Amino acid sequence: MDIKTPVIILNVKAYRESSGAKDLELAKICKAVMDETGVSIVYCPQQVDLAWVAREVAIPCLAQHADPYSPGSRTGSSVLESIKDAGAVGTLVNHSEHRMLVSDISEIIQKAQTLDLFTVVCTNNTPVSKAVAELMPSSIAIEPPDLIGSGIPVSKADPDIVSNSVNAVKNINEDIVVLCGAGISTGEDVKAAIELGAEGVLLASGVVKARDPKRVLEDLATGI
Amino acid sequence: MDIKTPVIILNVKAYRESSGAKDLELAKICKAVMDETGVSIVYCPQQVDLAWVAREVAIPCLAQHADPYSPGSRTGSSVLESIKDAGAVGTLVNHSEHRMLVSDISEIIQKAQTLDLFTVVCTNNTPVSKAVAELMPSSIAIEPPDLIGSGIPVSKADPDIVSNSVNAVKNINEDIVVLCGAGISTGEDVKAAIELGAEGVLLASGVVKARDPKRVLEDLATGI
Amino acid sequence: MDIKTPVIILNVKAYRESSGAKDLELAKICKAVMDETGVSIVYCPQQVDLAWVAREVAIPCLAQHADPYSPGSRTGSSVLESIKDAGAVGTLVNHSEHRMLVSDISEIIQKAQTLDLFTVVCTNNTPVSKAVAELMPSSIAIEPPDLIGSGIPVSKADPDIVSNSVNAVKNINEDIVVLCGAGISTGEDVKAAIELGAEGVLLASGVVKARDPKRVLEDLATGI
Amino acid sequence: MDIKTPVIILNVKAYRESSGAKDLELAKICKAVMDETGVSIVYCPQQVDLAWVAREVAIPCLAQHADPYSPGSRTGSSVLESIKDAGAVGTLVNHSEHRMLVSDISEIIQKAQTLDLFTVVCTNNTPVSKAVAELMPSSIAIEPPDLIGSGIPVSKADPDIVSNSVNAVKNINEDIVVLCGAGISTGEDVKAAIELGAEGVLLASGVVKARDPKRVLEDLATGI
Repeated sequence: MDIKTPVIILNVKAYRESSGAKDLELAKICKAVMDETGVSIVYCPQQVDLAWVAREVAIPCLAQHADPYSPGSRTGSSVLESIKDAGAVGTLVNHSEHRMLVSDISEIIQKAQTLDLFTVVCTNNTPVSKAVAELMPSSIAIEPPDLIGSGIPVSKADPDIVSNSVNAVKNINEDIVVLCGAGISTGEDVKAAIELGAEGVLLASGVVKARDPKRVLEDLATGI
Repeated sequence: MDIKTPVIILNVKAYRESSGAKDLELAKICKAVMDETGVSIVYCPQQVDLAWVAREVAIPCLAQHADPYSPGSRTGSSVLESIKDAGAVGTLVNHSEHRMLVSDISEIIQKAQTLDLFTVVCTNNTPVSKAVAELMPSSIAIEPPDLIGSGIPVSKADPDIVSNSVNAVKNINEDIVVLCGAGISTGEDVKAAIELGAEGVLLASGVVKARDPKRVLEDLATGI
Repeated sequence: MDIKTPVIILNVKAYRESSGAKDLELAKICKAVMDETGVSIVYCPQQVDLAWVAREVAIPCLAQHADPYSPGSRTGSSVLESIKDAGAVGTLVNHSEHRMLVSDISEIIQKAQTLDLFTVVCTNNTPVSKAVAELMPSSIAIEPPDLIGSGIPVSKADPDIVSNSVNAVKNINEDIVVLCGAGISTGEDVKAAIELGAEGVLLASGVVKARDPKRVLEDLATGI
Repeated sequence: MDIKTPVIILNVKAYRESSGAKDLELAKICKAVMDETGVSIVYCPQQVDLAWVAREVAIPCLAQHADPYSPGSRTGSSVLESIKDAGAVGTLVNHSEHRMLVSDISEIIQKAQTLDLFTVVCTNNTPVSKAVAELMPSSIAIEPPDLIGSGIPVSKADPDIVSNSVNAVKNINEDIVVLCGAGISTGEDVKAAIELGAEGVLLASGVVKARDPKRVLEDLATGI
């Protein structure tokens, strides 16, 4: 499973502003902006909304998290097979709000490959980006935890972490798509990220908590 | 939020046999048996299917797990507000495959009350049932972990744990609905559970992995 | 194993000021104040110092944490049998900095009883105190997390939580020793706690981070 | 901090046979065999015995686990500064019985370097070994989880995993000491491991549960 790059990935987390009907509405807005602008957008619904949103809206969806288990007696867990059956094209892995064991990240990536699912593994610094690159995910999203939700874009606050991660990851495997995230909220931020070598951005509150999410998405799309 | 008792709660876990379209199909079978027999049935879809199944099928649904967080920056978590917005009437809590901290169970129960959500807290023995009863959940489901998925019904293998838990819990608060689970697969098992004082059963593989889930559900319903 | 009450329990956590030689020194100061004043003092060394301090200083020691496992292939874990062999008389359980699953707390308490070890289970509010009381620990220490390390004594900031917890726990089992903690640093705080019905206090930074820990301990002892 | 290689690292886990006085005794046996044979031996006492054993016996000791926290309010945790003050020369990291988040492994390794502590990071397969190598630990110990405690030596059961890991890790950084473990119990196993390129072994039950641990250690030493 490939994702068209450059890409904007919207992770709606577990915000009040992205729950239930609002989750579906945000997905539809993303779809509309994607159609309008031609920019590739991927949507990560709330975990309990995944099958619903993925079935209702024709936009590529990722799960926000996958558990490293085989299908079976795993009450309350989200296994990759069920994520695929829900209609998602892949999953976020190791988000800073859902960190994982290194052995589990390795297992998720391998199983996702056999299921043709796309993996976006989040990392917090360059050494961790290199470590994860050795596990051969589809994509790595470098997100300095301090900047998440800060409104200060990583592409301005810490441009070196972006360009260093891009170089380090591509050096290990040039097929890995490198994204960046944290504090991204404008088209200018996206443009700066792309200029640093990123092939897209991962963002959340900048859109979800915006008064007019559609306008923000349209602005973000201008950066690509 | 109340649930009509006696009740059969079907937790479909993360089985291959209850994923995607099969999850919806099982929910529809439960709905059909509920309509046919008049017996109260509650359905726990896979976590990623929750909003989809709860919206498509007119059967009370519970989440399989709720995280003890407020809505917000909680990637991959299932908060109670989003569970409610997904259309569920409550949640399983502390299942043996998703155990929780005692302080978190307390928090989930209190927040569920304010949201008018039904809580079914799973316990593994009589002392833990008593402990949880002090936290005033809507319901307690006693499930000896050794018997889960065993095919040996708790109502036969360990009748004392059921009657002792019922007595101990009712002694603390007679409004708490006491259920039992583990190894339940026939109407006879359900009948035995009810005779021991349980107000219903919680089960999974006995239905999900059955060749003919509808027939098993109809048989289970005869026990009530 | 019983502990003489009223008691002052000093948990030295993982502070820089209580590491290595300073851990031993603090234990010796506690022993000296205990001998001087006749007040019962219990010491919780850093986990890696447990056997060393317990063997070098004639003061009752508790582990800061016990893992709910049987002895065996459990690299890096502290099982109760090893804690006993280390010379400790018991363990803290479920500290707010090391919360545990309710089923694990139950297991630790039961195994500690068979090993004649004293359990001090930390709780964060009255419902959780009642829940834990049903598991029959040796002792419960109520500590509102917001006040831990605050310098504002629970006995002043939230006297009701102390007296309510004492009443609720004693109502379930009057043999359970009820302690309180959070923000305790003076003899006056201890006195207030005792007057609210507590049989002792659990404290940390008030002593460990004091310029003159001995003087603080002597002052604390005047409250008893 | 360097460790003389080739090396035998004995992790005594939380076995009944390595608790309390027996832990000290095993450390003394290792010291005696080290003196007798000249072979480098490193000892990992039970976590609660660390300071005691490290102070009593003149053998390099590692903690079995380190928590990725700074010193402070961390009840029941083992921070690197306290591990160093306890007299240890380093720590095992990410043992299969104590797996860690990738971001935490990264943090532990970086902090250990500044404290001049030796890190032995356990891995379960070649991709994870490569990932960890990017984080620049002092050492990597490849241990296929299926073989741990099996009595079937990794050097025989899966020689490729050893030689592949050695090559992959050395390719990333030749200064990283590569060890292997799982099922090692004889000098012949050690010899096979060394011939596959490992610079030592990590073992546990083969010695701890032996009727005559000294004889087993002497035999192991012949492999070097």
